[in-house]
Amino acid sequence: MKTEILNRLTKELNRLQLNNKSYLGYPLANDFSFKQLAPFLDLQINNVGDPYTPSSLGLDTKDIEIEVIDFFANLLRAKKDSVWGYVTNGGSEGNLYGLYLAREAFPDGMVYYSESTHYSVKKNLHLLNIKNIVIRSLDNGEIDYDDLERSITLRRDKPAIFFLNIGTTMKEAIDQLDNIKLIIKKLAIKDYYIHCDAALLGIVAPFFNPRPAFDFSEGIDSISISGHKFIGSPIPCGIVLCKNEHKNRVGSSISYVDTKDTTITGSRNGLTPVILWYALKKMGITGLRDRVNSCIKLAQYTEEKLQEIGIKAWRNTNALTIVLDTPNTWICKKYQLAVENDITHIICMPGITKAQIDEFIGDIKKDLSNEIVKSDTNVVYDEFLAANF
Amino acid sequence: MKTEILNRLTKELNRLQLNNKSYLGYPLANDFSFKQLAPFLDLQINNVGDPYTPSSLGLDTKDIEIEVIDFFANLLRAKKDSVWGYVTNGGSEGNLYGLYLAREAFPDGMVYYSESTHYSVKKNLHLLNIKNIVIRSLDNGEIDYDDLERSITLRRDKPAIFFLNIGTTMKEAIDQLDNIKLIIKKLAIKDYYIHCDAALLGIVAPFFNPRPAFDFSEGIDSISISGHKFIGSPIPCGIVLCKNEHKNRVGSSISYVDTKDTTITGSRNGLTPVILWYALKKMGITGLRDRVNSCIKLAQYTEEKLQEIGIKAWRNTNALTIVLDTPNTWICKKYQLAVENDITHIICMPGITKAQIDEFIGDIKKDLSNEIVKSDTNVVYDEFLAANF
Repeated sequence: MKTEILNRLTKELNRLQLNNKSYLGYPLANDFSFKQLAPFLDLQINNVGDPYTPSSLGLDTKDIEIEVIDFFANLLRAKKDSVWGYVTNGGSEGNLYGLYLAREAFPDGMVYYSESTHYSVKKNLHLLNIKNIVIRSLDNGEIDYDDLERSITLRRDKPAIFFLNIGTTMKEAIDQLDNIKLIIKKLAIKDYYIHCDAALLGIVAPFFNPRPAFDFSEGIDSISISGHKFIGSPIPCGIVLCKNEHKNRVGSSISYVDTKDTTITGSRNGLTPVILWYALKKMGITGLRDRVNSCIKLAQYTEEKLQEIGIKAWRNTNALTIVLDTPNTWICKKYQLAVENDITHIICMPGITKAQIDEFIGDIKKDLSNEIVKSDTNVVYDEFLAANF
Repeated sequence: MKTEILNRLTKELNRLQLNNKSYLGYPLANDFSFKQLAPFLDLQINNVGDPYTPSSLGLDTKDIEIEVIDFFANLLRAKKDSVWGYVTNGGSEGNLYGLYLAREAFPDGMVYYSESTHYSVKKNLHLLNIKNIVIRSLDNGEIDYDDLERSITLRRDKPAIFFLNIGTTMKEAIDQLDNIKLIIKKLAIKDYYIHCDAALLGIVAPFFNPRPAFDFSEGIDSISISGHKFIGSPIPCGIVLCKNEHKNRVGSSISYVDTKDTTITGSRNGLTPVILWYALKKMGITGLRDRVNSCIKLAQYTEEKLQEIGIKAWRNTNALTIVLDTPNTWICKKYQLAVENDITHIICMPGITKAQIDEFIGDIKKDLSNEIVKSDTNVVYDEFLAANF
C-alpha cells in the first residue's frame, strides 16, 4: 500500500513538473520554490475571519497576512489606515467580494463591464443577484467608452458600478480610468463605485512607465489581485483591498470565534499569506521591478520574432501578453495555449525562458512550412521525490 | 535580510506549534503530517473549473480530486454516477454552493435553519439574497421541529429549503432527517430541497452506531463536509456533493479554459485534493473507523471525569463534543475554548490526548478550589526548521 501511494504521488508530481515547464499560454510564474515552508504542512493553520481582529483560536498567521496587505496597500498608494483587505483564494473571490461591497453600497446599482471580462464575473454577478450590462470592447480589449457612455445615459436614475479590467485575460488591455472619470463628470453621476480586476497587473503595472491609473490615489473603491500569477504560488491565492467604509458596511459581529467576520469564507488559508510574505520579502521592491522589466523585454523580443517570420503578432503598451492568430492544434497543445475564438496569446511570465520562446518560434516556422513535427515529451524524474515519499 | 526572514518564520512556526498542542475547543485534528508533500510546493497547481472536465491547462490534480469525491460519494451512499462534487476551500464554501443550488432550483424558496447554525450561513444567505427564517433550537441544539412545522404551515405557497445541521458547531447536535420528512409528508410539500451542513460529522457519523440519517440514500440534495477538521490539514478545505441534476442547472460553458465551470471559485486549490487523498489512502476505512471510536471513547471519559468533579457536563449521542458551563477566563485562554453565551465545549478530536484531558480536569479542579494557577508556556524550538529556512 505504501509503495502504491508513493508511486501514484510520484507520477502525479512528474506530470506536474513536466507541464510546469511547457506552458506559454497562462499568466502563471513558475520560477518559485516554497518547499522550505514544509514544516508548516504539519500544522493546523487557520486565519478565521477578519485579519485585523485577533480570534480566540491561536492558529493563525494574521500578523504576516497584515504585512502582506500593507505591502499591497502601499504599492497601490492608499492613504495610511484608509483601506482594509485580506488574502483570498484567488482573483475570483476578490472580484466577488468587490461586487458584494458594491451591491451593499448601492443595492439598486447597475454593473457595467466589458465583454473582455473574465468569465467568472458573470457567474459572480448571478450569484450576487445584481443587475448588469455587458459593454462592447474595442479591438485592443479595452472597454468601448462610447458604448459605455450611451448605456449609462439611458440609466441615469441608477447608481453606476464600474467593473474595470486592469489587464484583460486575453489581451491584457487596461480600461482607462481617466476616460471613465470623464463619463462620470459629463453625466454628473454622484452615486458610483469603481472596482478593479487587476488579477495579473495589480503587482506589475505599478512598475510600468508610464504608470497606468488604477489605484487608491485615483479614487477606486476596491481592487482584486492574484497572488499566484506574477509572484507565483502552488496554491491559487490573491489579495482584495477596499476602502474601510465599504468593509464596515458589511461587518457584523460574530460571537462564536470572538472576531468580526468581514470576509467571505470564514475559515481561511493561513499558509498562502506566508507564501506571499516570503516571496515579497525575498524579492523586495527592487526585485519586483527587475522582474517586471525582464518580462517586458522578453515580450518585446517575442513580438518582434513573431513579426519577423510574418505572424501578425501584437501587444498592448508594456504588456507581457502577445496576441496572435491561433496556430495549429499540435502547437496549442504542446505549449498549453488558451484559445478564444480565433486568437491565442503568449504570456511572458517570470520563469519563461528565451529558449522556450525560440523553440515556440521554431515550431511556428516549421508549421508554416508544413513540416510535420511531433512534440516529444521527456518524463522528468526527480530523485529528491522518491526519497521523500 | 536572509537571517531576518528565517527568524521571523521560525518564530511564527514556533507559536503555531505551541498552539497546535494546546487547544481543546476547536474541531481540528492535529495528528497529521504532510511535509512529505513538500515537492508540490515548488509547482503551479490549479484545478480550474469542474473537476470532471479536463482543461487545456495541464497543471491540475483533478484525477486525484475525483478519487476523493468518489470516496465521499460512496461513504454517503450515493448511487453510482448520481452525484457531483468538488474539493472546496472549507465548509462555508460548500454551504454557499448548496444554498446557491437550492436558490437556482427554487428562486422563490424560503430557507429554514435553526438558531444553532454556524454564523457563516446567515452571511451566505445575505450574499445570495435568499429569503430565510431562523427556527428555534431545542436545548440539545437540534432544530425545534414544532417551531419548524408552524413556520412552514404559514408559508405553504413557497418551496421549502431545509438547511440541516449534521452536528451543530457548539453542541454537535444532529437535526433529525426523519422528523423533517414527517413534516414534509404532513404538509404535503412537493417543492423542497435538503442541504446538510456536515462540516465535522460528514466523515464521522457514517461510523456511528446507530448511523444517523443524513446521506444520499435518505434523499438529501447536497452536503458540505470539512476536510481539515476530522482528517486534518494545514489548509482549510472541504468537499461539497450534490445530485447531478442541481449541478447541471448551474453549469455554463466557458470558452477560455475549455471547461464547464460549475464551481464557485474558478482557479481552485490542487494541493488540498492531494492532502485529502494522501490522508484517506493512509487511513482507509478501517483506520477511519478506529479514529472515530477512539474519539468517542475519549469524549466519554471526559464527560465522566467532569461529572465526577461536580461539573454539569453533557454530550449528544455518540458526540465527540462535551458541553459545559464556561469556566474562568484563564482556563478558556489556556485551552483556546470557544465561548458562546455562558457555555463552552471540549471537542475530542484526533490528536487530543488523555493527558491533555487530565490536565484540563486538574485545572478545573484547582479553579473550583480557588487555587490560583498561571499557565506556563514553554516555547517549542524545532532544530529541523532552523536548518530548513
